[in-house]
Amino acid sequence: MSDSTPSDPALEIAGIRLAAIAAEIRYADRLDLVLIELAENSSVAGVFTQNAFCAAPVTVCREHLSNATPRYLLINTGNANAGTGDLGIKDARDCCQAVADAMNVDVAQVLPFSTGVIGESLPTEKILAKLEDLGAALAPHQFPQAARGILTTDTRPKLVSSQHVIDSKSVTLTGIAKGSGMIKPNMATMLSYVFTDAAIAQDDLKALLGSAVAKSFNRITVDGDTSTNDCCLLVATGRGELDYADLDVVQKAEFQKHLESAFVALAQGLIRDAEGASKFITIDVEGGRTAQECLQVCYAVAESPLVKTALFASDPNWGRILAVVGRAGLPNLDVDGVRIYLGEVLIVSNGMRDEAYTEAMGQAEMDKKDIHLRIVLGRGEVSERVWTSDLSHEYVSINADYRS
Amino acid sequence: MSDSTPSDPALEIAGIRLAAIAAEIRYADRLDLVLIELAENSSVAGVFTQNAFCAAPVTVCREHLSNATPRYLLINTGNANAGTGDLGIKDARDCCQAVADAMNVDVAQVLPFSTGVIGESLPTEKILAKLEDLGAALAPHQFPQAARGILTTDTRPKLVSSQHVIDSKSVTLTGIAKGSGMIKPNMATMLSYVFTDAAIAQDDLKALLGSAVAKSFNRITVDGDTSTNDCCLLVATGRGELDYADLDVVQKAEFQKHLESAFVALAQGLIRDAEGASKFITIDVEGGRTAQECLQVCYAVAESPLVKTALFASDPNWGRILAVVGRAGLPNLDVDGVRIYLGEVLIVSNGMRDEAYTEAMGQAEMDKKDIHLRIVLGRGEVSERVWTSDLSHEYVSINADYRS
Repeated sequence: MSDSTPSDPALEIAGIRLAAIAAEIRYADRLDLVLIELAENSSVAGVFTQNAFCAAPVTVCREHLSNATPRYLLINTGNANAGTGDLGIKDARDCCQAVADAMNVDVAQVLPFSTGVIGESLPTEKILAKLEDLGAALAPHQFPQAARGILTTDTRPKLVSSQHVIDSKSVTLTGIAKGSGMIKPNMATMLSYVFTDAAIAQDDLKALLGSAVAKSFNRITVDGDTSTNDCCLLVATGRGELDYADLDVVQKAEFQKHLESAFVALAQGLIRDAEGASKFITIDVEGGRTAQECLQVCYAVAESPLVKTALFASDPNWGRILAVVGRAGLPNLDVDGVRIYLGEVLIVSNGMRDEAYTEAMGQAEMDKKDIHLRIVLGRGEVSERVWTSDLSHEYVSINADYRS
Repeated sequence: MSDSTPSDPALEIAGIRLAAIAAEIRYADRLDLVLIELAENSSVAGVFTQNAFCAAPVTVCREHLSNATPRYLLINTGNANAGTGDLGIKDARDCCQAVADAMNVDVAQVLPFSTGVIGESLPTEKILAKLEDLGAALAPHQFPQAARGILTTDTRPKLVSSQHVIDSKSVTLTGIAKGSGMIKPNMATMLSYVFTDAAIAQDDLKALLGSAVAKSFNRITVDGDTSTNDCCLLVATGRGELDYADLDVVQKAEFQKHLESAFVALAQGLIRDAEGASKFITIDVEGGRTAQECLQVCYAVAESPLVKTALFASDPNWGRILAVVGRAGLPNLDVDGVRIYLGEVLIVSNGMRDEAYTEAMGQAEMDKKDIHLRIVLGRGEVSERVWTSDLSHEYVSINADYRS
């Protein structure tokens, strides 16, 4: 996937202009307010947090998205505008109205997004004061600035960009994302915005987004906590050469593959930069009866503090992994049929340490920064994959100090 | 509950003798092997881990318990004899056989228990070498030594003892327990042994144990991890004055209340000594529709790393609590009906910070060592309670360093 790694320079998307500015919403001298302009008649699809306590901007965003074709995205960091009741709704609407007035569009054409501390009122006056400057700064090449402008505890921006030729036509994909704690998206993600210059009808876009999210943002977990503010948006401006409707089945699959790669790269970028993470862990559960039971084991392992601290310590403590598989709640699990691999090394078979396994073999795998854990249930044909991070002192420090 | 705190001196139980010895199973100069003798015809009831990868001694213990009336409990720490396959089963049986030979009872009258590192073979020779000394040391006053002899990462023994008069007859309860990590018992507990001198028929004992465990060990969590070795035993020697069968309904309820108090004190003792714990947290979820949904919220909050690190930091970060309640998966939760209290302080109402709440009020509650969190769902009549600990640097250190 050399064409869509986060380190690539950002490719502009015809029909998209962006700007980021320091509005001092929570910290000084830090980009914390982003405005993104979408060309007229762009298609927009979104998925949002399933948290019952969803934030005010999520409520307003959903409402606006169902009533109008979006032209502007307004994103602030430093304050989540969550747990803020009716005032929070009013604040989100006021910000949208101010953008609408400045840009001469309808209020429902502006989508609000917030991330940061929960439970404090949005400092709308700081946001409103910067809208004129933001509008004036809009430019197509500002993806890197926008990627920085949406961060909270992230230590680096997440930006993917790739160009492809399908059916002799060029198509570009560029996306940004943020999020490093309170991460277990549930049919949604942290803040993430992916743009393409292809023309894609609303229904197709929705299906493409759903499928890409299922394989990326909904397969990662840092701490099992689903945020109040998760949003993922996919925008198709239709200002490029490609029209998705003209593609045949194989070409559509190719586009979908590229889109999924962009989403996976962003999702993996979140995990690599997860709060306090020192390891990147891929957990494969294979040979299950259903996707549900595979994911049950994936998440039980990915979220076990005992497994996560062992990974932090580079300790090939396979007993903890075995214990988690055993408590994951699979009915009638034949433990003697379960095999556990660390990389290519078989650790557990027949309910115990494999005969050929040595501590040195396990240690060599554990010493790596990227760790691949494979659990073969041996009772079916289904596989699932989840990515996660380890549990470090740094995670405790960040979350004991930071008010999120 | 002044008569059953862990600091009380241990009261002897007629019909019980104990011994603890240093067998150097994993560490030198540390009590790590315990033998407990039960009077002939004692009633014994047990509950065991639900982990599919249950340890060899658990398998053997269940088998022996269903085939004979137990006379001896052999408990080792330092090695869990889990993930050890057929050899583990043989090792557990060999130890039982050696006790049976030495004490002239049937092998099925000996119950084996192990706790400690998973996945290493039990050093049976070290255990067998000490059996003669152990047998010779058996004495009724050795409860404190036995309580110390079953510990792993625990920093202190857990011992409760109380005496009561019911129906003009004296009855004594004394119990010990261990466990401080990998703690989320599931219809079971860490290692725990509670003894009474009352006479109680097998069926009554089973029912009493089930009810007491449900209200104590099955209501605590440290890290959401269920061990491979959890066992909880209740022994009634019948060598005291009280016969449970002679009691009327009110008197039986009184006995049950005292028994539950002992179990709760032991369970709370585990949480107070949980790995790296600096806080003791009681979580009440009230006004739910079902016990299931109340427990769902209890455990979601109790196991959230973000809530646990905030508790460690004494940070009244109610937004994280609200976010967890929102993601706990309750269908059709009306978030405006939810109230969250810290101690007596109302923090959240109507989906936002309560109007009267101030940060100073929350901080005063958070600064306490014992924290009471109350979540009122406002949609039913059911309540549930769970106890847990915070997530500290010390937890990470212990679990990154210790091979469990």
